[in-house]
Amino acid sequence: MPLTVDLNADVGESFGAWTLGDDAALIPHLTSANVACGFHAGDPSTLARTCALAAGHGVVIGAQVGYRDLAGFGRRFLDIAPADLTADVTYQIGALDALARVAGTRVRYVKPHGALYNTAMHHEGQAAAVIEAVVALDPTLPVLGLSGSALLRRAAAAGLATVAEAFADRAYAADGTLVPRALPGAVITDPEAVIERAVRMVTEREVVTVDGALLEVHPDSLCVHGDTPGAVGLAAQVRSALTAANVALAPFVRA
Amino acid sequence: MPLTVDLNADVGESFGAWTLGDDAALIPHLTSANVACGFHAGDPSTLARTCALAAGHGVVIGAQVGYRDLAGFGRRFLDIAPADLTADVTYQIGALDALARVAGTRVRYVKPHGALYNTAMHHEGQAAAVIEAVVALDPTLPVLGLSGSALLRRAAAAGLATVAEAFADRAYAADGTLVPRALPGAVITDPEAVIERAVRMVTEREVVTVDGALLEVHPDSLCVHGDTPGAVGLAAQVRSALTAANVALAPFVRA
Amino acid sequence: MPLTVDLNADVGESFGAWTLGDDAALIPHLTSANVACGFHAGDPSTLARTCALAAGHGVVIGAQVGYRDLAGFGRRFLDIAPADLTADVTYQIGALDALARVAGTRVRYVKPHGALYNTAMHHEGQAAAVIEAVVALDPTLPVLGLSGSALLRRAAAAGLATVAEAFADRAYAADGTLVPRALPGAVITDPEAVIERAVRMVTEREVVTVDGALLEVHPDSLCVHGDTPGAVGLAAQVRSALTAANVALAPFVRA
Amino acid sequence: MPLTVDLNADVGESFGAWTLGDDAALIPHLTSANVACGFHAGDPSTLARTCALAAGHGVVIGAQVGYRDLAGFGRRFLDIAPADLTADVTYQIGALDALARVAGTRVRYVKPHGALYNTAMHHEGQAAAVIEAVVALDPTLPVLGLSGSALLRRAAAAGLATVAEAFADRAYAADGTLVPRALPGAVITDPEAVIERAVRMVTEREVVTVDGALLEVHPDSLCVHGDTPGAVGLAAQVRSALTAANVALAPFVRA
Repeated sequence: MPLTVDLNADVGESFGAWTLGDDAALIPHLTSANVACGFHAGDPSTLARTCALAAGHGVVIGAQVGYRDLAGFGRRFLDIAPADLTADVTYQIGALDALARVAGTRVRYVKPHGALYNTAMHHEGQAAAVIEAVVALDPTLPVLGLSGSALLRRAAAAGLATVAEAFADRAYAADGTLVPRALPGAVITDPEAVIERAVRMVTEREVVTVDGALLEVHPDSLCVHGDTPGAVGLAAQVRSALTAANVALAPFVRA
Repeated sequence: MPLTVDLNADVGESFGAWTLGDDAALIPHLTSANVACGFHAGDPSTLARTCALAAGHGVVIGAQVGYRDLAGFGRRFLDIAPADLTADVTYQIGALDALARVAGTRVRYVKPHGALYNTAMHHEGQAAAVIEAVVALDPTLPVLGLSGSALLRRAAAAGLATVAEAFADRAYAADGTLVPRALPGAVITDPEAVIERAVRMVTEREVVTVDGALLEVHPDSLCVHGDTPGAVGLAAQVRSALTAANVALAPFVRA
Repeated sequence: MPLTVDLNADVGESFGAWTLGDDAALIPHLTSANVACGFHAGDPSTLARTCALAAGHGVVIGAQVGYRDLAGFGRRFLDIAPADLTADVTYQIGALDALARVAGTRVRYVKPHGALYNTAMHHEGQAAAVIEAVVALDPTLPVLGLSGSALLRRAAAAGLATVAEAFADRAYAADGTLVPRALPGAVITDPEAVIERAVRMVTEREVVTVDGALLEVHPDSLCVHGDTPGAVGLAAQVRSALTAANVALAPFVRA
Repeated sequence: MPLTVDLNADVGESFGAWTLGDDAALIPHLTSANVACGFHAGDPSTLARTCALAAGHGVVIGAQVGYRDLAGFGRRFLDIAPADLTADVTYQIGALDALARVAGTRVRYVKPHGALYNTAMHHEGQAAAVIEAVVALDPTLPVLGLSGSALLRRAAAAGLATVAEAFADRAYAADGTLVPRALPGAVITDPEAVIERAVRMVTEREVVTVDGALLEVHPDSLCVHGDTPGAVGLAAQVRSALTAANVALAPFVRA
């Protein structure tokens, strides 16, 4: 059986007059698009266009839910009460799903954004709040996140499908966590290294940690970043390298 | 066949620490609840609670879509481009529908709020934008509005069901339009007069205009206001008076 | 020399169509008004009216700066970078000061609101960020806060005047910190008890802690809450009781 | 006496993670910087950096006040009540002034942004509201706008200094108004033409209208756009061409 992996990235993160990333160029390289939902980024017109782009390329749409914090782009921890977070997540998924439906498709999975993603790795209350929203709204929606996170553990316990992702451009610690961005070497900027790591993660199921050890990984999806210079080209190269290594690129759910 | 009418009011218009109206007391008197969608009012937690209240009382939920203007409570005309308005309306309906689904029901109709309601009476571009959103998302959703408005005319032309409402506490001009709030006598504040007008609108299909003439009306629904002092009591009295006049209170769509 | 104390409360916390508290009734009882600055509450029109009210009653205006979080009313910790917080605080003080100037007065002190207040008790980075804003903008502005907090310690170290406040309606732990609201007994709801504590704090310089011990306090100002039922009456009673106990009510800075 | 003109552009219009324009490159070419104030664009950190940039280059700071509409970038007419607009404008000027003071300077003039600019050309209520804010806050602040606009007429009537600007890259109608952007030819995109028009406006006090006629103009300031591709280069070229034509570049007020 051939190896298969999904390729996901954050899109739909422009807002009004402000553009972030080049979604039209990036989306064709993806198999899954984490579309913002308006709370950390993404005005409804942007989201409608993004959903149409994804649908047009057969790319699966996921709801990239975040904190209500446009000024901080959802990158700042917010100590929101779990019940409020559950309502915020439900609201965001529903809003994006309506735009996806108009584009001829649906929201097919959920992935927290930014500080919510980081918080849901270990904050039991917020992780549970996100999962509660998905379970109550549509328990057929998988949750995309980091292996070993509170988020995926709770998703699995609640009977949701879980999708584990890996980051080819981020350094890993020996325990499988990401090296915090503030630390040196946290982000791998050499394209060749990123491509090599991506292929190795999928074909060898391993990655070299920041300490030089080998870490076993089982990524269902690789996350590429869309808002950095050269992001589109790198996504294309990662995709080509995976294909050259006989890895099939395919979404983890049907569009 | 007995006369039947729907009773609708705006609810879900609190926001965070700020409370507006007494939804828990008002909703049991309604047959249809125009629930805010977060753009002019209504944080997701408030909306979740409001949907649960409505569902618990068998009251039908409609999406009360508005301009993105919390500071102005959606009461100020915004010259938004039609394509952007369509996306904003789609987003709002979807967001509320997700919360309604979690509460065990669905959004069953759409009604514009405040300045968008007033604008959609005559502004062809914005009226068309609202209708386009409904048609594209779910053409089985009726649109609630004022008889003779551009909104209902375009809704009908697009094949949507239309629901005409009347306001027992607002003065009418001879042409069937509402007397602008800025003019004296625009709002009828005497409860007895409001109740008498409500019953007469439904049973006699007429209302006395501000000029003393008789205007023929055919309301499918009566709108009562929820955010004024005595609103809950007045809604209860209107309902009682209608029942006493052998008018059945029933929603225009199934919950 | 007669005993003197200041009486402060949060005001200007309405927003658009939403009203919170009864500022017109409360302000005359105060000597210092902590006016919201638009980030957690307070649209500019509300703030303009509030400044005019305060100025009209000779009540001193302070800038009640908060997190940018209308949906959470500034009551949720936000992990904002210190440099961003400094800019946010500067922005808010300046905005309110302009409205105060139009009302014939000025912003005369600074007090953090809600979660920022709580955070600035112990979070050195955020406490420093608030103080940096005040120092850079106007080092003659005193900072109002809790005795022993990081905020007041850093304010003093930076050469700012500090004003220590006490809460007559909040339970104290033996170490002088407030009992968290989530714990039973954290808020004293009996008006007689609140009044008795207020007078004792000022005249005896002591308060009975939640454990029954005596805690020495030296309040320059007493904080009364403005948004609870009976708040205005309680403020009036506290003021009367202090006056009856020969305590002069006076602001800590000139209006 | 040598000819003198001011060169102004909109800056400070980034927001959080979103960047608009290249202020660091543009500002050195300006004599006056219209800095956003947070309502249509410009988070406080961005504004603080922009003020520091302007102050560092000796460029005068003006408050570019706008509608509270981040999603629309202040480019959509908002039918705000004049009293509310006055408070919004006061708030914005004060907020920016605090950041300017921290940067060692002050807000020295006021210019409405986007839809507010266009509206204030002819909407007497909103024009009056803007002027009322300036008069009440600081009547020494000049108002920058279009010659013949309601804004400048009311500013002059209120005793404010007025500064008339011209747009070298916009087509003029015979009556001195700008050709609406929606019409063909409204924006002159050929850099050579823009530069030639800029010099002619100042040295010959005339511009060729869209109909080929000559229109007399008396610009105190030329507005260049900062958010279009090539904007920085064009600003530099306009400045060079003016200098080569013996026109001195100087702000209309002292920094």
